[in-house]
Amino acid sequence: MVEKYDVIVVGGGPAGMTAASRIKRLKPSMRVAVFERSGYVSYAPCGLPYYLGGFAESIDWLVHYTVDVFRRRGIDVFTRAEVVEVAQGYARVRVGGEEKAFEWDKLILATGARPRLPPIRGLDLEGVFTLRTLEDGERAKRGVQSARRVAVIGGGYIGLEVAENLKRVGKEVVVFEILPHVMPTLDPDVAVSVEEELTRNGVELHLGEKVVELAGGDKVEKVVTDKGEYRVDAVFVATGVAPETELAKQLGVKLGATGAVQVSKRMETSVENVYAAGDAAEATNLVTGKPDWFPLAPVANKMGYVAGANAAGLSAEFPGAVGTAITKIFNLEVGRTGLTEERARREGFEPVSVKVETVTRPRYYPGGSRIAVKLIADRRSGRLLGGQIVGGEGVLARVNALATLLAKGGTVEDLFFADLAYAPPFAPVWDPLVLAARVMIRELGGAE
Amino acid sequence: MVEKYDVIVVGGGPAGMTAASRIKRLKPSMRVAVFERSGYVSYAPCGLPYYLGGFAESIDWLVHYTVDVFRRRGIDVFTRAEVVEVAQGYARVRVGGEEKAFEWDKLILATGARPRLPPIRGLDLEGVFTLRTLEDGERAKRGVQSARRVAVIGGGYIGLEVAENLKRVGKEVVVFEILPHVMPTLDPDVAVSVEEELTRNGVELHLGEKVVELAGGDKVEKVVTDKGEYRVDAVFVATGVAPETELAKQLGVKLGATGAVQVSKRMETSVENVYAAGDAAEATNLVTGKPDWFPLAPVANKMGYVAGANAAGLSAEFPGAVGTAITKIFNLEVGRTGLTEERARREGFEPVSVKVETVTRPRYYPGGSRIAVKLIADRRSGRLLGGQIVGGEGVLARVNALATLLAKGGTVEDLFFADLAYAPPFAPVWDPLVLAARVMIRELGGAE
Repeated sequence: MVEKYDVIVVGGGPAGMTAASRIKRLKPSMRVAVFERSGYVSYAPCGLPYYLGGFAESIDWLVHYTVDVFRRRGIDVFTRAEVVEVAQGYARVRVGGEEKAFEWDKLILATGARPRLPPIRGLDLEGVFTLRTLEDGERAKRGVQSARRVAVIGGGYIGLEVAENLKRVGKEVVVFEILPHVMPTLDPDVAVSVEEELTRNGVELHLGEKVVELAGGDKVEKVVTDKGEYRVDAVFVATGVAPETELAKQLGVKLGATGAVQVSKRMETSVENVYAAGDAAEATNLVTGKPDWFPLAPVANKMGYVAGANAAGLSAEFPGAVGTAITKIFNLEVGRTGLTEERARREGFEPVSVKVETVTRPRYYPGGSRIAVKLIADRRSGRLLGGQIVGGEGVLARVNALATLLAKGGTVEDLFFADLAYAPPFAPVWDPLVLAARVMIRELGGAE
Repeated sequence: MVEKYDVIVVGGGPAGMTAASRIKRLKPSMRVAVFERSGYVSYAPCGLPYYLGGFAESIDWLVHYTVDVFRRRGIDVFTRAEVVEVAQGYARVRVGGEEKAFEWDKLILATGARPRLPPIRGLDLEGVFTLRTLEDGERAKRGVQSARRVAVIGGGYIGLEVAENLKRVGKEVVVFEILPHVMPTLDPDVAVSVEEELTRNGVELHLGEKVVELAGGDKVEKVVTDKGEYRVDAVFVATGVAPETELAKQLGVKLGATGAVQVSKRMETSVENVYAAGDAAEATNLVTGKPDWFPLAPVANKMGYVAGANAAGLSAEFPGAVGTAITKIFNLEVGRTGLTEERARREGFEPVSVKVETVTRPRYYPGGSRIAVKLIADRRSGRLLGGQIVGGEGVLARVNALATLLAKGGTVEDLFFADLAYAPPFAPVWDPLVLAARVMIRELGGAE
């Protein structure tokens, strides 16, 4: 007998579990199943670097809600359940050692993203890790325990967070980045601050260096690059992620130029009754107005929320995102939102940028730090296009205000006149954002 | 001989000095004078409580730029200079022990605000202080040195910041507030958190208690209220401020319903060639669309910036403000923006409010704290009207994002979909603001 569900959700990450929960909340009578390939649902891969750093005693701390919570909500959750074949109204799932067929009226593809691995030899050696699932995290934590020297391939968010956390537990850390700078979502002039912070904290940084091979016996012993060879005891591969679209392809769902699933604002794919949400799907970039790809948990959650509402028969729309992200690298907070200068140029804007370095508190109030704000605006329209902020504190406040304004199509004038909070423990009377906007107004030809 | 200026600025606070600087930057040939009654210009009264608490070793630390800096910019700055009479094109100023007449083409009233004193006896006793000028701060700091027990009359921002700082230097502190709660710019349910924090830190709090007299010989010895008598060694009167409009009245300038000077968006008063800016002037409340009064330094600075541009012959407009403010009371950060629930009702909205209590970081990341977000929205339109946020950290980030959205007429949906930054050191994956918006959507009758 083939089991039948009103909605099948593939993937138990943020998007999938939010979608499933929303359907059950809106239409408790609907039968909803979630199939998750790993052993956990509703978990935070973003927490994995901190698990390595010893912040979470147990991997369970990275789970927002357990399977039991969702089952109590009436959702049939299957873990270690891999959907191996899917067609309209049908799914074949490998679960508990056997394959089972299911029928569905609606399908939500919340398949997420998978590590994008470089085309090099040696990735299968012992001591080589990626970080995506909680199982990955457990394996990696055990695996680096006895390592003295660890290589991280890739200088993006995850790579640098892993580097910091490995330093925290006493490892020697070498980071290899193929590009001339870490964090390609920052402009080079801002990335330099991050590089300085890494170096200051003892991370060995190799920029513009291409890893060509991981070598060793059974276990990795060496990173071979286009410039040299490095003895290491373990390797993290953090060279980015790619949308997981195998099932989408099976269904004939149209992919976008980003490689992720093309969706409407209602999270509908090109195939009837099939929705996509989370890291597997595209979303509108509210700055460019074009489809883009934002593999970030908060965006995934909201896509899931909207997909769930629509799958339950309501009507909801996901407006899009601007690409806001933040991280902390040692003592440096690093935030970004919107377009980089380079990206803005590629998108056909006429970007103007300013960078202002100031402080987070008046000088008489203790505990302040330096902060740098880079703003990018369009010369023709005065519209804000993006910003990057680095400093010892207060970055979240500025990146969030800027992101909120970007989403509303705000201008440099809007930012200058933004009514931001001021008090000595929090900000100087001219907030760093407002100061940057003031300099930008002059740059745009208004008299400052 | 009567000296002639293109622009005379009355008042050397944030608005006045920003206006004067802007004029000289835009039109270096213009002759600009500033007359300031106290001995300092460009100072931060908001820093005075922290001066009491020992954060600034010297009162000079509270001065952003000295008189010399402005003189080098070509501005004729006169301190201890009181404008005693003003008429169209004319001003008589008491400076250096004598009176002098000046002529002007344009006048900028940046006269600020003065303490609003309660109608009680004993305010002139020794040991009774207000905090507005730096001289006030110096007098007060000396005056409380030997005091053991100090009363603070008024539970607004300044009163509570004074209370905290006096505790910091080891005083016993008693706060008297005539209203049932501290901080009338917060709704009562939020003010309660502030009251708990004060009490937890040993501040003796008397709410709904009216001070009727300060008694003593030469020196204040006793606070007499409608409920009792209290032995104290010093008293701070922090019962709010009122716009300083004496000169405006002399000129026949029209005042608004708030008691401050009515101005256009260009900061023009009802009298030709006379501008007003800063705490003396009104500004548009961007939530109500009506004139309002925001006696806060960042708003004052921007009003001065706009008044200066217009006085220099350019054309600039100040759009208005939403009333954003923040403070830190012991370990509690307190932020607010827009309308309170009560005010929203008075303004003819149909306010709906939600209050969400959550955390600032995922539980596995150390250093997080509790945070409460209260949102107020209009039931009919779904428009955000205001918000109040209290917590151990992260309040600036939320109040700034909310303020930015309020200024753009944002809705609850806009807030729910706001692309706020997430990473474990900074926020949970559902940001407190987004969570509050989600609960509000349900409250407004959208299915959550």
